[in-house]
Amino acid sequence: MLVLTQGDPSGIGPEITIKAWHSLKQDGPAFVWLGDPTLLAPHVPTQVVQDITQGGEVFPHAIPVLPLPLAAPACPGKPDTRNATSVIDSIRLATELALQGKASGIVTNPISKDVVQGAGFTHPGHTSYLAELCGVAGQEVMMLASPLLRVVPVTVHVALRTAITQLTTDLIVRTARTVAHGLQRDFGLPHAPRIAVAGLNPHAGENGLMGLEEREVIIPAITLLRSEGFDVSGPLPSDTMFTPQARSRYDVALCMYHDQGLIPLKTLDMAGGVNVTLGLPIIRTSPDHGTAFDIAGQDRADPHSLEAAIRLAAQLSANRRTPA
Amino acid sequence: MLVLTQGDPSGIGPEITIKAWHSLKQDGPAFVWLGDPTLLAPHVPTQVVQDITQGGEVFPHAIPVLPLPLAAPACPGKPDTRNATSVIDSIRLATELALQGKASGIVTNPISKDVVQGAGFTHPGHTSYLAELCGVAGQEVMMLASPLLRVVPVTVHVALRTAITQLTTDLIVRTARTVAHGLQRDFGLPHAPRIAVAGLNPHAGENGLMGLEEREVIIPAITLLRSEGFDVSGPLPSDTMFTPQARSRYDVALCMYHDQGLIPLKTLDMAGGVNVTLGLPIIRTSPDHGTAFDIAGQDRADPHSLEAAIRLAAQLSANRRTPA
Repeated sequence: MLVLTQGDPSGIGPEITIKAWHSLKQDGPAFVWLGDPTLLAPHVPTQVVQDITQGGEVFPHAIPVLPLPLAAPACPGKPDTRNATSVIDSIRLATELALQGKASGIVTNPISKDVVQGAGFTHPGHTSYLAELCGVAGQEVMMLASPLLRVVPVTVHVALRTAITQLTTDLIVRTARTVAHGLQRDFGLPHAPRIAVAGLNPHAGENGLMGLEEREVIIPAITLLRSEGFDVSGPLPSDTMFTPQARSRYDVALCMYHDQGLIPLKTLDMAGGVNVTLGLPIIRTSPDHGTAFDIAGQDRADPHSLEAAIRLAAQLSANRRTPA
Repeated sequence: MLVLTQGDPSGIGPEITIKAWHSLKQDGPAFVWLGDPTLLAPHVPTQVVQDITQGGEVFPHAIPVLPLPLAAPACPGKPDTRNATSVIDSIRLATELALQGKASGIVTNPISKDVVQGAGFTHPGHTSYLAELCGVAGQEVMMLASPLLRVVPVTVHVALRTAITQLTTDLIVRTARTVAHGLQRDFGLPHAPRIAVAGLNPHAGENGLMGLEEREVIIPAITLLRSEGFDVSGPLPSDTMFTPQARSRYDVALCMYHDQGLIPLKTLDMAGGVNVTLGLPIIRTSPDHGTAFDIAGQDRADPHSLEAAIRLAAQLSANRRTPA
């Protein structure tokens, strides 16, 4: 059984959860919501469960809820730090259920850093918090996946200038290993994962004419990874590596900075991208967007990314139970 | 009448020219080839013209050629520096014809820097050479245009690290002015050009949390451009600015570095992108690819970008003659 965290109660989490349930209630995959049932209840049937194993039976008729009460009433679009603890509790409970093997995977609704940091949450977002809860801090890797493309940014939420200085052979190698193992274990590929590594510079540096990071940092990483038996290509010029023909030759693109991976992903498939955390002992996905306080409560939020996140979590969990 | 340069005689220029002629001979637009007729002759009818005005009459039956003899026989895939002078002569003659008003625009076939630099060609490529020939050195701006998207990289063929340091408010402002004037004059838009300016950093810096260039460099440029009356939006997060909905809100994306613009362009439309030089007194387009020596002479080269370049040059020239 999948568990879905509450996310920020004033964001779009509750409404996309309701929309996702309407899409999924007939054929699944089912999920249990870990949060305050009053966020859903006026709009949709809910049913409190004592144990998440009851979720499957309930799901066709109501959203199964393992209740976590809010400290203050939630007003859409008006984040309230008094609810920070319940936001964090939902994530922690979901992770515990997954670590105990009770939940097959967790899907997280968006949270706001501004809200939770007052309650002692020191992480930039879910991903590193989950790694800490799982006892694997520093090993987490963010992948964005859509049916058209999977990308992993090796450096993430830092200034571009900083990303360039953070880029090391060791970082690329460690990230690629985690990605290869994650794809191998959970993604049901018919072959060993094929990793395409992007260059940093235009034309992948054009033999050193436009930057030396390919020679000094990226190619040594590729050489090392190949010596370990991984199927790795590159460094590829990043402007031509996302065409349909190029994409058919790899399973995941390892990108050197945030926008190098996120531009093609969102350009190709804005609504269908799913955030997957690799490197954890548990399965975790989330929609690839934020709390969207500016449109919360207006019935305008697009549930497709959350639905895709739920479907992907179920698929990964099925693959893990039934290795190829 | 458009003129088409020879490009490197050992690259794919001759074969894509032949393919483009087959596509265009019925309905045009017509062009005159400035090069050695023996590169085309075995495969296709050619006819030497004394004056490019004869091109229109000839074009339905044969490729009109203003002949420039090669110094050495051209072997596909084997570039030969002895032919450098004829490559350069073709570009110079095309530019002269356009500056004299005899040619309505020029389309250039790909050249190889390695070949021409031995003959004293000191430019990184066509674009700055054309600006020098036109007496407007430093004012040239490269735009890549497809039916789905137009992009202008403010910094171009330099290491990403260098691009960040080259980025100044003045460079962005000068580039945007050139782009706005070029689009206004030649692109037949129904309104003043709408320019979307990308941020440099992830999430366009997220209010300074991930980089300061938006605040210190980009926003001041946008403010200045707006005060001059230009329709400018941004800085926009570059990962979400190339979705269909976002693209509908602007006519051109001003990008801070090469791959920020080229990734979405080539991901959306690998074969249909055209390189347009703005800031020149003449109209100039080219296909958005290189000499492709590795596949030259194998009948594998895709002529779509050259065809699109010829069609776009004709359209720009018609718009310039008939201002909106």
